[in-house]
Amino acid sequence: MTDAAAQPLLSRLSLNQETIRQWSLPELADGCARAGLRGIGLWRAPVRAYGVTAAARLVRDAGLTVTSLCRGGFFTAADPTERRAALADNRAAVEEAAALGTGTLVLVSGGLPPGSRDLAGARERVADALAELAPYAAERGVRLALEPLHPMYAADRCVVSTLAQALDLAERFSADQVGVVVDTYHLWWDDTVGAQLARAGGADGTTGADGTTNAGGTTNTDGTTGAESAPSRIAAFQLADWITPLPEGVLLGRGQLGDGAVDLRWFRERVDAAGYRGPIEVEIFNPSLWSRNGTEVLTEVVTRFLRHVT
Amino acid sequence: MTDAAAQPLLSRLSLNQETIRQWSLPELADGCARAGLRGIGLWRAPVRAYGVTAAARLVRDAGLTVTSLCRGGFFTAADPTERRAALADNRAAVEEAAALGTGTLVLVSGGLPPGSRDLAGARERVADALAELAPYAAERGVRLALEPLHPMYAADRCVVSTLAQALDLAERFSADQVGVVVDTYHLWWDDTVGAQLARAGGADGTTGADGTTNAGGTTNTDGTTGAESAPSRIAAFQLADWITPLPEGVLLGRGQLGDGAVDLRWFRERVDAAGYRGPIEVEIFNPSLWSRNGTEVLTEVVTRFLRHVT
Repeated sequence: MTDAAAQPLLSRLSLNQETIRQWSLPELADGCARAGLRGIGLWRAPVRAYGVTAAARLVRDAGLTVTSLCRGGFFTAADPTERRAALADNRAAVEEAAALGTGTLVLVSGGLPPGSRDLAGARERVADALAELAPYAAERGVRLALEPLHPMYAADRCVVSTLAQALDLAERFSADQVGVVVDTYHLWWDDTVGAQLARAGGADGTTGADGTTNAGGTTNTDGTTGAESAPSRIAAFQLADWITPLPEGVLLGRGQLGDGAVDLRWFRERVDAAGYRGPIEVEIFNPSLWSRNGTEVLTEVVTRFLRHVT
Repeated sequence: MTDAAAQPLLSRLSLNQETIRQWSLPELADGCARAGLRGIGLWRAPVRAYGVTAAARLVRDAGLTVTSLCRGGFFTAADPTERRAALADNRAAVEEAAALGTGTLVLVSGGLPPGSRDLAGARERVADALAELAPYAAERGVRLALEPLHPMYAADRCVVSTLAQALDLAERFSADQVGVVVDTYHLWWDDTVGAQLARAGGADGTTGADGTTNAGGTTNTDGTTGAESAPSRIAAFQLADWITPLPEGVLLGRGQLGDGAVDLRWFRERVDAAGYRGPIEVEIFNPSLWSRNGTEVLTEVVTRFLRHVT
């Protein structure tokens, strides 16, 4: 892609704060503003430690917007008391998102309750929780963004493992209330992900008279995009690369863009074609990035983004 | 299940030798025979070290059969020289399987070539390799058993990640030449696996007049099973449980039956319903089993099998 064409994509680049977790919130706001970024993705724990109102002001004063808040969810408990506590915590997360001015609350569903082997039951409890939370969130201008996590997390972290499953759940609700997160790290291996991305964009799977697939996001003759008539279910788009060997616990082994097996540009083009026009967040959990100078890491992220994503 | 009903299932129990890798081949044959098992699954490296002909005689003299040989495959290389070497090695594996008297050669496809991000291309090379090997194997009485591995191995070990993908590949060939391996450790997380198991059994997905799904393996009025008219694609059925946290490299963290998240009985019932009547192999890679007395581990395997699978 030419430099001129890359510019609009670069303006959508957002840094998820866990990528450079060695930075405090003020360092993050300052560092991202200096690098010319417009958005950052935040996590609840550091935001609460700093103070939600103060964090919102800090980000705003730096000329940045919060592209998403990570994360609510973890509502697969079968026990009624645990379930009530999880829902209360998710309502608090909605309020924090609203206070930060982001319309996107990322949800990781939670895994199997201890001793349970009932994946289908846990997945139904995710649907029940979404039904309770979606109107509450919508009233506060927040859309629930359900994130499918890699199947290696199905037991202990997230029973929603594929984009198809996430869409099956999200489509029970209106598109402005519940969307999905597309994270390359979690979805790259799936041979159906291209078709599911088209589905997320509102594609009906039929082939148009011109031989192209009638996917959401293709430009109509009146200049509007298909995505406008059938709103995209994609609420957030996150990038990380897949590298091996995986570390113990498999949580902190994500790769810098371009270092691994994921065809990041392929994903970005299909997410584009699905009508998504929002932020593109880089979210890499890796201690090798956390031990380095934050500004140097951010420079590398921008360079890699230009090389592998635009 | 009653003891009487469990008996036919117990007679199908087979021990994959990697579960008790501390045993030499003679110890394995002796230990399994003493425990009343009828089958064992073998790996190429220890068989070659012992001598293929000698191993075949050893197993036969112990009154056991070889239920599968692990493994061929690793034929995703794009480089022609590497590819030729991989195919030659697979022909050798076919010959070893035939010499051991097993009709089942387990194939793990291989991952992405170094630096490649082309999953679709790698998967097509798997199909090409199957086309070269399947007639060669069939002439020697060996069926290729393509194994989908958990998506966490997609980059470095196996680009075939779901049962649906494995069936898509297998169905390009006749069912007696190419089948699939159903391993609970790799497939348990997938919400489509029930439907894919029915597909593997020859189900056509339509609902019969009695309201039951017309899956292969249901008993017809003439006493034959649907699987006989539409042969099952399931060439091998392997058991291990899913436990967390995963160890570094994620290879040696499989759980003893009943210790983890997998509903093993659910799988066994669906594999039954798909018309599979072959061996049920327990294949657990875990150093905590290897550090124990082999006979004690095998006794535990049998106990757990009766409790969680039958």
